[in-house]
Amino acid sequence: MAEVGLKPASHTRVGAVMDTLYERIANRSLMPGARVPSIRMMADALGLSKSTVVEAYDRLVGEGVLVARRGAGFFVAGHAPPLALADLGPQLDRAVDPLWLTRQALETGGQAVRPGCGWLPPSWLPEDNMRRALRVVARDPHSSLVEYATPAGLPALRQHLAWRLAQQGIDAEPSQIVLTDGGTHALDLICRFLLEPGDTVLLDDPCYFNFQALLLAHRVSIVGVPYTPNGPDLRCFERALIEHRPRLYICNAAIHNPTGGTLSQTVAHRLLKLADEHNLLIVEDDIFADFESEPSPRLAALDGLARVVSIGSFSKTLSAAMRCGYIVARQEWIEPLIDLKLATSFGSGQIAAAVVHRLLVDGTYRRHVDALRVKLADAMSEAIRRLTLIGLDVWTRPRAGMFLWTRLPEGLDAARVARHALSENVILAPGNVFGTSEQAAQFMRFNVSQCKGPKVYEVLRRAMDAAT
Amino acid sequence: MAEVGLKPASHTRVGAVMDTLYERIANRSLMPGARVPSIRMMADALGLSKSTVVEAYDRLVGEGVLVARRGAGFFVAGHAPPLALADLGPQLDRAVDPLWLTRQALETGGQAVRPGCGWLPPSWLPEDNMRRALRVVARDPHSSLVEYATPAGLPALRQHLAWRLAQQGIDAEPSQIVLTDGGTHALDLICRFLLEPGDTVLLDDPCYFNFQALLLAHRVSIVGVPYTPNGPDLRCFERALIEHRPRLYICNAAIHNPTGGTLSQTVAHRLLKLADEHNLLIVEDDIFADFESEPSPRLAALDGLARVVSIGSFSKTLSAAMRCGYIVARQEWIEPLIDLKLATSFGSGQIAAAVVHRLLVDGTYRRHVDALRVKLADAMSEAIRRLTLIGLDVWTRPRAGMFLWTRLPEGLDAARVARHALSENVILAPGNVFGTSEQAAQFMRFNVSQCKGPKVYEVLRRAMDAAT
Repeated sequence: MAEVGLKPASHTRVGAVMDTLYERIANRSLMPGARVPSIRMMADALGLSKSTVVEAYDRLVGEGVLVARRGAGFFVAGHAPPLALADLGPQLDRAVDPLWLTRQALETGGQAVRPGCGWLPPSWLPEDNMRRALRVVARDPHSSLVEYATPAGLPALRQHLAWRLAQQGIDAEPSQIVLTDGGTHALDLICRFLLEPGDTVLLDDPCYFNFQALLLAHRVSIVGVPYTPNGPDLRCFERALIEHRPRLYICNAAIHNPTGGTLSQTVAHRLLKLADEHNLLIVEDDIFADFESEPSPRLAALDGLARVVSIGSFSKTLSAAMRCGYIVARQEWIEPLIDLKLATSFGSGQIAAAVVHRLLVDGTYRRHVDALRVKLADAMSEAIRRLTLIGLDVWTRPRAGMFLWTRLPEGLDAARVARHALSENVILAPGNVFGTSEQAAQFMRFNVSQCKGPKVYEVLRRAMDAAT
Repeated sequence: MAEVGLKPASHTRVGAVMDTLYERIANRSLMPGARVPSIRMMADALGLSKSTVVEAYDRLVGEGVLVARRGAGFFVAGHAPPLALADLGPQLDRAVDPLWLTRQALETGGQAVRPGCGWLPPSWLPEDNMRRALRVVARDPHSSLVEYATPAGLPALRQHLAWRLAQQGIDAEPSQIVLTDGGTHALDLICRFLLEPGDTVLLDDPCYFNFQALLLAHRVSIVGVPYTPNGPDLRCFERALIEHRPRLYICNAAIHNPTGGTLSQTVAHRLLKLADEHNLLIVEDDIFADFESEPSPRLAALDGLARVVSIGSFSKTLSAAMRCGYIVARQEWIEPLIDLKLATSFGSGQIAAAVVHRLLVDGTYRRHVDALRVKLADAMSEAIRRLTLIGLDVWTRPRAGMFLWTRLPEGLDAARVARHALSENVILAPGNVFGTSEQAAQFMRFNVSQCKGPKVYEVLRRAMDAAT
């Protein structure tokens, strides 16, 4: 297929028709393979003669821009290449490419140290309890190991989740909950349901980098809104609503990733008011909820699930191997969401749901997260102390959770530092991985649970020296 | 937002500009929320004055068709409603709505009889072996129960799958295999990778109904090609390639769902030649492979994975609760596929992969499918005998598998028969559920493993009488 750019406008009528089509192809309002308006329709619409349009179309066929198919009309030539997320995002250094960071963290062997990764070390997770629960599920004659799950997912788990959500002030029936294979799957389903290609979505800047990768796969535009320690900057938020008319805002309410900030009551309330005024939908990704001792304000609770959808998962607190997440949404969205889930993955895993349910009801989960909070708070204090000693500034002291957002000393570029550390097998997370703009070159996210022991700090210091 | 139809072309210049936009909105080349070309660009492109375009845009704002945003330009008003698959398909009777059938089969209680469903009864599946394997995995210190999977999925299972594929003539390295959460998830990932909204996809007519639901979620057009007992009708196939320039063809090679047909060597070869000539990609959904004693021709084997992607799963032979499927594709597609998998579901389930691997390597799986084939062959003979007695015609005698495609006596409508049977708690699968056209009103798919015992035939006979 010929390369189509926006050619200079011609001053002939034939040229004008050609330019119209060049432009529509260039801005992808006409996709490769799409049918072009018929000659008669185009002539009528533009008030030109049919012969003018015929000539324009013929010349476009000659240029390889259009293809004529007998009896069917004219079509835009070519097929789009397969979707490569790596090509869609901003072309950054590999060290700050979000997908590359994820894959490094997932693929490198056990000897690597991962202060940049987004999960707890296996030793912090209740593996023995999981093994025991799995054996119980394996033995339980009531748990089916061979049948498809009910479409919405294990009823007993949904029942229990409704009760847990009530503790966080979110009032939802079990029938308003759909189980998924983890939080990412939940967000993907919601995006499929609510977004059209070409829509605009608001994200915090910075935000969890996979939001951006996922949204690229949905072919929507992303607009970033600067994040403050209490939530998004509301003046910028309102401006973005007016300028970009986004369909959706995706956020973490409790314990923002990567900054560790927390939405305040005031910001939450004003944000919902703006959402109402501008008909904005909101997905509240609440997968870090259980790291809090006291629940912070939740949009889903304030809004009563009118325009907010809540997402949860157990990947961060319990096990990333047991893919079990959920969507909580207004009742009338549940049936079409289940249809979509069936059409695109048939059903979610029964066994993960049964194991999670068991650990929730027998008290294992509560005891585990109680202990986890204490351990994380200690690790947080230690990391703040040691990183401050090396010269890093803490952006905000997080209420809870594992993430710490820090600023490197003046003049240091986090991507360079990360590259040096990688050569010593330490995986860091430079700020621009999380940025929707590139404002975070001096920032770095640390996962305090992965910062135990001196190696992280020794390597970090050397990498900072080398990057100066 | 105002309802936008294709208004009659106006003969003023302002009207012509308005008509151009009406048309682009009506045919969805401009989506709700999309930015409209700037006034200068439109004026240049159409060879009209800016004041003409300004007047046209102003009138469209007045009509509520466009919205002006200060400093940003003009946008198409409104947001598209959430994606409801139920609204996208042809508006059929609920009894022949594919998603409704799936949900009936999944949701109705244990007392229902399901000759229309697409899976084996639980009693035919090796639940005790599964329980044992799950306990072994729970105990095995090498199996991580808390960590994310490696992005491509359990290496040992991919290794074993490569060996198994070689038995079917498909030559693939373990690095060409990506594990997924089942066959549907595999197909969804491939569609995400290869398809753009607006593309055209060829399907067999009839075909597995979920292909259609899944493709609707990808916003592509579907073109059906009549299926013969040896594969698609190649004359129609070629005509469809020329007329519709599809990007992709999705099929079952071995044991076609719903007809039980099998691709012949000749058809397979000629089909691949056509695919080469027309630059068509092919997904071969091979989830029924293990029901065959002798492998039938496979496109992936003939083509050497050049333009064919193969999909497999264990949901049909082993367990639908253990979500474990895989994609086999050319090497250079694997990395972007893994990126997409991470972005949209983070990782696939480790535990299902570990259980499947165990059952494969210890010989349990082989013994199970050997026994299954004999049992299915017996059930097939019995179903053919009993259905023929009632007056149904078998379209083709399947080589293997669970599906039997039958024609009801003249004058009977399968949807009506299904509705009557449903009132007696028997879930049938009327032909139009599978059709991409509506040519299959007289057909019905039976799952012979779910046709044991007299009740199916008694109810079917009564339902046929009632529907006459």
